[in-house]
Amino acid sequence: MPAVTTRRVLLKSRPVGAPKPSDFEIVETPLPALNDGELLCRTIYLSLDPYMRGRISGVKSYARGVDPGELMVGGTVSEVVESKHPSFKAGDFVQGQNGWQTLAISNGAGVRTLDPARAPISTALGVLGMPGMTAYVGLLDIGQPKPGETVVVSAASGAVGAVVGQIAKLKGCRAVGVAGSKDKCEYVVNELGFDACVNYKTDALVGALQAACPKGIDVYFENVGGATTEAVAPLLNPFSRIPVCGLISMYNASSPAPGPSWRHILTNRVLVKGFIVSDHLDRMPAFLGDMSTWVRDGKVKFREDIVAGLENAPDAFIGLLEGKNFGKMLVRVGEDRTRR
Amino acid sequence: MPAVTTRRVLLKSRPVGAPKPSDFEIVETPLPALNDGELLCRTIYLSLDPYMRGRISGVKSYARGVDPGELMVGGTVSEVVESKHPSFKAGDFVQGQNGWQTLAISNGAGVRTLDPARAPISTALGVLGMPGMTAYVGLLDIGQPKPGETVVVSAASGAVGAVVGQIAKLKGCRAVGVAGSKDKCEYVVNELGFDACVNYKTDALVGALQAACPKGIDVYFENVGGATTEAVAPLLNPFSRIPVCGLISMYNASSPAPGPSWRHILTNRVLVKGFIVSDHLDRMPAFLGDMSTWVRDGKVKFREDIVAGLENAPDAFIGLLEGKNFGKMLVRVGEDRTRR
Repeated sequence: MPAVTTRRVLLKSRPVGAPKPSDFEIVETPLPALNDGELLCRTIYLSLDPYMRGRISGVKSYARGVDPGELMVGGTVSEVVESKHPSFKAGDFVQGQNGWQTLAISNGAGVRTLDPARAPISTALGVLGMPGMTAYVGLLDIGQPKPGETVVVSAASGAVGAVVGQIAKLKGCRAVGVAGSKDKCEYVVNELGFDACVNYKTDALVGALQAACPKGIDVYFENVGGATTEAVAPLLNPFSRIPVCGLISMYNASSPAPGPSWRHILTNRVLVKGFIVSDHLDRMPAFLGDMSTWVRDGKVKFREDIVAGLENAPDAFIGLLEGKNFGKMLVRVGEDRTRR
Repeated sequence: MPAVTTRRVLLKSRPVGAPKPSDFEIVETPLPALNDGELLCRTIYLSLDPYMRGRISGVKSYARGVDPGELMVGGTVSEVVESKHPSFKAGDFVQGQNGWQTLAISNGAGVRTLDPARAPISTALGVLGMPGMTAYVGLLDIGQPKPGETVVVSAASGAVGAVVGQIAKLKGCRAVGVAGSKDKCEYVVNELGFDACVNYKTDALVGALQAACPKGIDVYFENVGGATTEAVAPLLNPFSRIPVCGLISMYNASSPAPGPSWRHILTNRVLVKGFIVSDHLDRMPAFLGDMSTWVRDGKVKFREDIVAGLENAPDAFIGLLEGKNFGKMLVRVGEDRTRR
């Protein structure tokens, strides 16, 4: 077999504030021959997610970060090109964590096989993958929504937020989104079935949220932090719950902004709980069972924002942190033979 | 029976910022004769507690507030002078909510009889009363301390904080206090058995806390808010818990200060939970059972800061909000015949 070469996006330098294209570099690297127990994967889709900003920040966090000179991490959907691993064969479609590169050698750990007949393979990075499961675990296990309650979710048209609001509706709640454009708000209400959506860029946030939540807020699914959280705090009902999933508005800040006063937390006996989906892998079977049914039946819809070409990953990632994407952000790194 | 007169402290005007003596006034009011089902109580001890600042603030909260012209609310230990209630007789010692006054008519709701042979009657307002139960419920039910973990408590020499640290020690934890004077810190360590105590007025808070918590913080029992909370946040361990009991540092502020960044909550999957002890009255039997044993056996010690005379209640309350008390703040309104 001829030597194969992978194209990789490396972190070149730690971003200060918002990442710049020059913080990344693309290199070509030859790959060694496969050893027993390994498989060679051709990347089809690379997932871009807000958590990646934390990984390149140099700040100690829940997972090891990426140092300058190292491959950018990320979830991937790939086709197996060659396999010396008993669980996989050439032609399989798999989901794994191969990072920002065109070809990768994997030892099979954490890799799952996908059935293209069941759902589009890209959904393994979105509604049927980590973002969907994040919404499921955060809303159901921490948020514990009850019928008739009001659920507010920020970044409502994003990969996580869109699923949160749709599950809230399935559970009989009023679902209110917060998003950053008129198009996103209209999509969230008209396509996804949210009851209302507040445009944080043009609406007077406090008043608009109050109008959208006449009975107060029982669950606030936190994706952003900052001004949205401040506006939510006075509207919290007694015994409300706040799953803290992400804080995208402060990921580029060198010193993160303060949170809201704890007075609302105290007087309303609010529960605030940070969570990371990888702590909840025991919920994977329940999630996949419920969500694949909901997606198949059209009860949970999804939208993808796909850019083509690994070389465009840095720009797409920079845009994601600014809210420029519309739906689950993916990079199509290689041909998807399952789509016509 | 001759007409009886009660002396009362009324709220005269809503404080702006720190309460002033002129925000209160003392009046004498005749009491009507007892109806069937009522009892006349002579106040012995009045409890002064930080939550009272919220009640007179005019801000909507979990309990109805005190309006100007109304009697100040508060927990009391009294002697029954006369009873037309089947459950109480003259000479009984009772704990109730008779407010800042020398005599009161009660219908018996929420009143419990005390046994002076079992514990000093004043403890029904402290270690064996609402503050003790607040510590018990907040630490055990929300904080869920495990042996070997580090528990930090602010206002550590106060009625709640002192009990939190001592229960933490009973549960096999490292107990670290934060208090506002050298004397308080020494008391907390030498008398109550905490492992360390940081003086927030003289120590460099972040460095001193770090030194006192070499293995990080697993439970932070929140009584104060503000700078102490800011200093705690970076030291929180993964999966740590923060029962939010009080925020005394901001009670006099017209607009409460912001809380810490939620970044620590997210990356360390922290649980933050506001709570009010009156939501947890189902835990009263367990609390009284455990705590009376611990107090009897000298495993939980307590200290009272008693001022004599109802007329001194406003000044004592103002001092409490500034941390001038040392131990559970009580006003001895009338003679305690059980003490020699």
